[in-house]
Amino acid sequence: MLRTALTDMFGIEHPIVLAPMGGVSGGRLAAAVSNAGGLGLVGGGYGDSGWLSRELSLVKSQTSHPWGVGLITWSADASIVDLALGYRPYAVMLSFGDPRPYGSIVKAAGCHLICQVQDVAGARLALEAGADVIVAQGTEAGGHGAGRSTLALVPAVVDAVTPTTVLAAGGIADGRGLAAALMLGAQGALIGTRFYASKEALGHPQAKRMIVDARGEDTCRTTVFDVVRKLAWPQPYDGRALRNGFVERWRGREEELAAQVDTQYHVYASAVQAADHDVAVVWAGEGVDLINGIEPAGDIVQRMATEATDRLRWGGRLA
Amino acid sequence: MLRTALTDMFGIEHPIVLAPMGGVSGGRLAAAVSNAGGLGLVGGGYGDSGWLSRELSLVKSQTSHPWGVGLITWSADASIVDLALGYRPYAVMLSFGDPRPYGSIVKAAGCHLICQVQDVAGARLALEAGADVIVAQGTEAGGHGAGRSTLALVPAVVDAVTPTTVLAAGGIADGRGLAAALMLGAQGALIGTRFYASKEALGHPQAKRMIVDARGEDTCRTTVFDVVRKLAWPQPYDGRALRNGFVERWRGREEELAAQVDTQYHVYASAVQAADHDVAVVWAGEGVDLINGIEPAGDIVQRMATEATDRLRWGGRLA
Repeated sequence: MLRTALTDMFGIEHPIVLAPMGGVSGGRLAAAVSNAGGLGLVGGGYGDSGWLSRELSLVKSQTSHPWGVGLITWSADASIVDLALGYRPYAVMLSFGDPRPYGSIVKAAGCHLICQVQDVAGARLALEAGADVIVAQGTEAGGHGAGRSTLALVPAVVDAVTPTTVLAAGGIADGRGLAAALMLGAQGALIGTRFYASKEALGHPQAKRMIVDARGEDTCRTTVFDVVRKLAWPQPYDGRALRNGFVERWRGREEELAAQVDTQYHVYASAVQAADHDVAVVWAGEGVDLINGIEPAGDIVQRMATEATDRLRWGGRLA
Repeated sequence: MLRTALTDMFGIEHPIVLAPMGGVSGGRLAAAVSNAGGLGLVGGGYGDSGWLSRELSLVKSQTSHPWGVGLITWSADASIVDLALGYRPYAVMLSFGDPRPYGSIVKAAGCHLICQVQDVAGARLALEAGADVIVAQGTEAGGHGAGRSTLALVPAVVDAVTPTTVLAAGGIADGRGLAAALMLGAQGALIGTRFYASKEALGHPQAKRMIVDARGEDTCRTTVFDVVRKLAWPQPYDGRALRNGFVERWRGREEELAAQVDTQYHVYASAVQAADHDVAVVWAGEGVDLINGIEPAGDIVQRMATEATDRLRWGGRLA
């Protein structure tokens, strides 16, 4: 039990939050994290209402602990925000875009607002949106994000928004990273890739295995998977993924890919259908070196909390 | 006093090492850090023997505490290694290149060998070289380096080289970062940019002021300053610097710059003479948000150690 402003806010046991990974953080994974004493967030992705309704029903049925849902701000609309709030989540997390318009709706519903940001200017905007929690996300993170690194970004955000609660995200995959996040002034960590390689994650078994096998150098930030999927991600966002044949082929030739997108879109979609991960994306963060197996999410939460506690006790004795 | 494997190895008080910044970490700065209880390393740069002899004489005359010297491995030759060893440093640090050839010379002289690496493969090479200390340097760092981020790299290197002593470098500019480094499994931190903005650093006062004023987003990694100076840095190294007019003009057009280098070399050299930092490089890391003044290096060491101790005590109580 590591008691911080985050655990107090939600009445949870561990300052560990599941990143709302689109297509990966379904209701079952979110519930498993919440049942283990963390805070599970379902990944709303690009606003597929059928998928989201099913997964939110699932998380509600599988846990009586606090849970939440994450949305991609620029891609969301009022109806998907309303749909999410209709399930009465304990928290809605908004990432990637100006959080103010939907933030006010979330707050008006009496729900905790979590905003994920990639720089200090974004953190100030999150404050304006009424954020209860601000996630400072570094470039180490898997999936979408931007360019600043976690270690230097987190204390800069803390200095800018104190006393608002800050979480660290990006590159944290074990209890050492969680303990480091607390030293930086964060009140907990938002963790994605480590939970992708869990039993309950919705990702393909082969994708999970690739995460276990990868080293940090096998990841890169890229826009090619957004270009080929015709997703209009605004600047400055790109995403960190495992290097595969597709990214090696198109990285640095994004304009050429865009010019051929009508053909490549279908090539890509077929690869996704066939679970061909030499083409289809596997989002993954730099922390993959620290991931050595596909495990139940609850075990991951427990080990991370225990390891962080041990590290903090060691540090306390050092001082 | 934070006692770690690093402080035990050198008999020093704080696990804080001055990065050997070329042209910035002179004898006076190194001595100030060592006199405050850290380990000061003089920056050997590109092997100017006159400069190095003067600064090594200076550090020897100004401190009776342990100190060292850092060399750029790919640019060094046996004579500069011998010159450095002739001053009987407590440590020689080798960065950027295969450390094995000079590493054996350093070890044969009975001197501690510190190797700085940017990935796990480099850490394994450092072990082969007989490194007593391995610095895992993240991409947040100012000056030369590579692509991996500190937060995820440090524990991966620790896992690969335990029980060898590891230091964290990159993005650490205050006691929070030092405490975080210890949580990650490092035995201390190597710190550059924070000491650039010190009274004793050899950098230009305007450069120091620019570091104080900058935000993390104002830095970028680039090769343009190497191209224009005709420095043959090997792959995968580039350097993090403050964005200025010169880098904005040439970044992404490095081949064009190389084609005009005979002209641009003189333009650049004149700007250095004139201390025109809209052209001349100011190396700086992402931790600049955390730097709020130009201070005596000893004060920086003391505050960093005190702040880290306070954070670690807080963390120990949390657990």
